[in-house]
Amino acid sequence: MSLLTVGSVAFDALETPFGKTDKIIGGAATYITLSASYFTKKNNLVAVVGDDFPQSMIDYLLQHGINTEGLQIKQGEKTFFWSGRYHNDMNTRDTLETQLNVMENFDPVIPDSYQDCQYLMLGNTAPAIQQMVIERLKTRPKLIVLDTMNLWIDIANADLKNLLKLVDVLVVNDEEARQLTGEYALVKAAAKIRTMGPKTVIIKKGEHGALLFSEDRIFFAPALPLEEVFDPTGAGDTFAGGFIGHLAKTDDISFDNMKRAIIYGSAMASFCVEKFGAERMLNLTDEEIQDRVDQFVKLSAFGL
Amino acid sequence: MSLLTVGSVAFDALETPFGKTDKIIGGAATYITLSASYFTKKNNLVAVVGDDFPQSMIDYLLQHGINTEGLQIKQGEKTFFWSGRYHNDMNTRDTLETQLNVMENFDPVIPDSYQDCQYLMLGNTAPAIQQMVIERLKTRPKLIVLDTMNLWIDIANADLKNLLKLVDVLVVNDEEARQLTGEYALVKAAAKIRTMGPKTVIIKKGEHGALLFSEDRIFFAPALPLEEVFDPTGAGDTFAGGFIGHLAKTDDISFDNMKRAIIYGSAMASFCVEKFGAERMLNLTDEEIQDRVDQFVKLSAFGL
Repeated sequence: MSLLTVGSVAFDALETPFGKTDKIIGGAATYITLSASYFTKKNNLVAVVGDDFPQSMIDYLLQHGINTEGLQIKQGEKTFFWSGRYHNDMNTRDTLETQLNVMENFDPVIPDSYQDCQYLMLGNTAPAIQQMVIERLKTRPKLIVLDTMNLWIDIANADLKNLLKLVDVLVVNDEEARQLTGEYALVKAAAKIRTMGPKTVIIKKGEHGALLFSEDRIFFAPALPLEEVFDPTGAGDTFAGGFIGHLAKTDDISFDNMKRAIIYGSAMASFCVEKFGAERMLNLTDEEIQDRVDQFVKLSAFGL
Repeated sequence: MSLLTVGSVAFDALETPFGKTDKIIGGAATYITLSASYFTKKNNLVAVVGDDFPQSMIDYLLQHGINTEGLQIKQGEKTFFWSGRYHNDMNTRDTLETQLNVMENFDPVIPDSYQDCQYLMLGNTAPAIQQMVIERLKTRPKLIVLDTMNLWIDIANADLKNLLKLVDVLVVNDEEARQLTGEYALVKAAAKIRTMGPKTVIIKKGEHGALLFSEDRIFFAPALPLEEVFDPTGAGDTFAGGFIGHLAKTDDISFDNMKRAIIYGSAMASFCVEKFGAERMLNLTDEEIQDRVDQFVKLSAFGL
């Protein structure tokens, strides 16, 4: 089934304890679509960049079968830019600079050829823009997955609460879940979110794995214990991309299949952190992905 | 097979966001033996208390089939006392008061009837005392499991390093693993610990579960997501007690059985945190334990 992803396509400049980068390709939708491209070839992107965005990077997306018809290129404008520095623990980071540029007035245009999408992934951007995408689709997708962040919980809380009523799955990290609900225990936070709209809640805990909540069921997927986390940027988006990519590929939104989707998402995220930015996501093989998934099975399987 | 546990039997006074206690029964060996008592009835305790320790509390241990022949009662002396206050996140705590009392000159005497023990659990206490126990056993147990803490890594590092050469399994939390090795990544920390003596390393991550490292294999067990953590005191010791209790019961130290033992340990720990101190550990039923273990299976099982 076809997947539509909306979100940022951006430049990032990153500093980690292992080094720093110049401007490299980044943005939530970049990570999501690249990750999903290993599962589905019906992979449609809605985003906006400036005329400073190099064709070579768009070519990367095209090579992965990502449909860029919905990628607007604004002449005379600049691409969204974010730079950040990670602390030694790699779990916390400081934003050094944010230039909204083309994102300031992002008007998400949905090409006609995208209208039949069954799976909608609302990558992190302003809730008002995410809602616009839902409203511009003539048919409601089978599954709408929303990612958001602390910034929007702070400055666009009412918009976010309205949007939550329209989505099926919310993907947030543990701190965002707590901030959104005022509940410290993640079981309680997830229960509260499930009263706000989404029937399913995924709480990402970074190196501590991810939790899936749906009705009265909980599933926990570990993160792969890694010797080295080189750069965590985009890991959460890559996780979301693997998750919805697997669902779109299999067209099965049962709890059991969402569990599998979370394992695939976790496997994809474990690749993402191995190199700077999205570099590791550019040329994975099916064998590498299957091998990584097998590691998850070994890691968490036990018999009583 | 018979289990020998050495460690503190103590009074604790606890403050959590949910309330505070007067002096209640605590101590590493208390939690370990109570937890192990649900798995094995050959459960021998070596510890020391003062004459202020009430017989009613010793009766609790006896009711659980714990052999208290090795529990010394020092006339005219006082029981070890610790008081602490948990922060709102329940993951960090401040020590308010420590009175070593009888623990200051603890000389662990091993009754003859304990000499045949196959499983030795060295609960948290000074490494020199833990080593004395090993040296006083005429036959080396089949499996020696060591628990320790940041205090001993700080003030008795050389003793601890010597002791590590003699043990099979080290159980520590994530911060202790990092402190002991200087490695941030737990995979690297575990590998380094495995060069220090223990062939198997268990790293407890509290609400984030536990990792088991042995040779080139890793197993991850989640912690049960709980609505309420009432009091985390003793959860790590309870985990260790369930772990070694299951091993002693089954007399199987294979990797696959250690995985099961970790699941049982995690299940026991999930009970411990539900009430103050060791209260919840006093009257569990086999059905409750099996039900909790089943929840772990549901929580982490997936099929690809």
